[in-house]
Amino acid sequence: MALPAEFALIARHFRPLAGEGALDLSDDAALLDPPPGRQLVLAADAMVAGVHFLPDDPPETIGRKLLRVNLSDLAAMGAAPLGYLMTCAFAKATPDAWIAGFVAGLAEDQREFAIGVLGGDTVATPGPATFSLTILGTVAPGQALRRRGARPGDEIWVSGTIGDGALGLLALTGRLPPDAFLAERYRLPRPRLALGQALAGVARAAMDVSDGLVQDLGHLARAAGCAAELCADAVPLSPSARAALATDPALRERILGGGDDYELLFAAAPEDAPRVLAASAAAQTPVTRIGRFLDGEGVTVLDGTGQPLALGSAGWSHFG
Amino acid sequence: MALPAEFALIARHFRPLAGEGALDLSDDAALLDPPPGRQLVLAADAMVAGVHFLPDDPPETIGRKLLRVNLSDLAAMGAAPLGYLMTCAFAKATPDAWIAGFVAGLAEDQREFAIGVLGGDTVATPGPATFSLTILGTVAPGQALRRRGARPGDEIWVSGTIGDGALGLLALTGRLPPDAFLAERYRLPRPRLALGQALAGVARAAMDVSDGLVQDLGHLARAAGCAAELCADAVPLSPSARAALATDPALRERILGGGDDYELLFAAAPEDAPRVLAASAAAQTPVTRIGRFLDGEGVTVLDGTGQPLALGSAGWSHFG
Repeated sequence: MALPAEFALIARHFRPLAGEGALDLSDDAALLDPPPGRQLVLAADAMVAGVHFLPDDPPETIGRKLLRVNLSDLAAMGAAPLGYLMTCAFAKATPDAWIAGFVAGLAEDQREFAIGVLGGDTVATPGPATFSLTILGTVAPGQALRRRGARPGDEIWVSGTIGDGALGLLALTGRLPPDAFLAERYRLPRPRLALGQALAGVARAAMDVSDGLVQDLGHLARAAGCAAELCADAVPLSPSARAALATDPALRERILGGGDDYELLFAAAPEDAPRVLAASAAAQTPVTRIGRFLDGEGVTVLDGTGQPLALGSAGWSHFG
Repeated sequence: MALPAEFALIARHFRPLAGEGALDLSDDAALLDPPPGRQLVLAADAMVAGVHFLPDDPPETIGRKLLRVNLSDLAAMGAAPLGYLMTCAFAKATPDAWIAGFVAGLAEDQREFAIGVLGGDTVATPGPATFSLTILGTVAPGQALRRRGARPGDEIWVSGTIGDGALGLLALTGRLPPDAFLAERYRLPRPRLALGQALAGVARAAMDVSDGLVQDLGHLARAAGCAAELCADAVPLSPSARAALATDPALRERILGGGDDYELLFAAAPEDAPRVLAASAAAQTPVTRIGRFLDGEGVTVLDGTGQPLALGSAGWSHFG
């Protein structure tokens, strides 16, 4: 009996991605021995063409972006990746070569992050391509980083640089001049897995920046029941972002609130700054102090003279 | 700082569903101690409005159907449910009351199946509503039922009744007279969790029937490297399906190939028939012998006189 087309598609494109426990993607479910002495960490994210990625983004980057966005959630918890499940709703009449590119990108990231696919589903949709990914990771018991836990007086740190993803989207849609670095930062975020694991037992609270620095800092402050003060001039920027901001100072709001950063935002006691810097060095990931937590509530953004800045948008919300 | 609308939506509707380990859905990921001495079982499925459910299906049944379809994958492996993650791409301008109904349905099934949500994502889509669910379950080590393993001479069994879901879709779309039983079978499949667990160590191979009995039997046969012979008259039918078939004998093809059954299809050695029946009784789930595996390959469907039937469609494939 010939294989129907859907199964042929899975066999041709997805089976080579199958990781340990995936049973070759030919059973009803994956079967996995949980690593002994570890807690499981689980997260899921979805992406819709035209909303979370550009319909003309290279297919090689789209699946990788979704995988990395989920890996970033593991990084925020200080977890190590174990595997993932993915459902793909491909737009009708998607060319086979597009799917091949999509899968080739995933294969590259599977090698980079040493994980395999455990299962999933492939369907056709009359609407925009829609992907959903569930990531599975592990952490030593009691060592997971949490959003809650910051205390007044703690310092606020962030990894890497902020605003590149949001500016990359502008550059890719003609609202800023083309910039290959920013475009890559939008399409291929870098999950800070090594840093997250190195910060276990060091940071008091952590999350990844996905909805915008100011909004996400608000989440940390709310979870801790305290206020946060952010020094805008201390926020680390890439040379590309710095150049764009010099040309148009109004981009500051986009940088601080645009999202798509996937950097780690975390709190640490001032006396733990040397341990934070040691974790940064061990993970080969730069970190920068950008503010502090205080008694009170809400987020205040200060300019270079210590005056509060008024920001129009606190971040990105799909239902805002 | 006010919560953006997306977070308010999650807090209002989804947080009450949060299960143990979900961290109240307010962290980057869920944190779970894997049950000691068990293997993990993981599966994921997606559903698109207008493809896998009817856009005017009651919102209360849509999430439940996706949950049950995934639970059926656990049942097919003989696993017990542990929790799930779900991503929801709601069509833009979806009324809040619709989402409330969707969540109320999930809440009902969470009680029925004693599980909670571990995490997920909520986004808006310009296309049809699209949902994806990853189910997490556990099984005793080495006890998982697999698709491979049937041997020539084994008997083919199926639980419940076949064809109700496919006929229910016809009844809901005006191609058959309205039938509340069939409609319910289409909208709310019954995952055979108790039977699956009772069949561990009894069945030689198992899967759930989602793409159509004949096609799925082909999967079991292919995985075993043997042939399968199905007696069409032995396939168990509900009174509603029997009445529809009596009116229009051409519906037989739809019954045998239409899919959406979510019954368990399994192989057992003839001498194990008493153990199969004991498992059926223990799980309070009827089972019926419908054929046997043979040397060779492919699926043959026999009519009441033992003559092969020609079936036009071997099942449902999204890319067929």
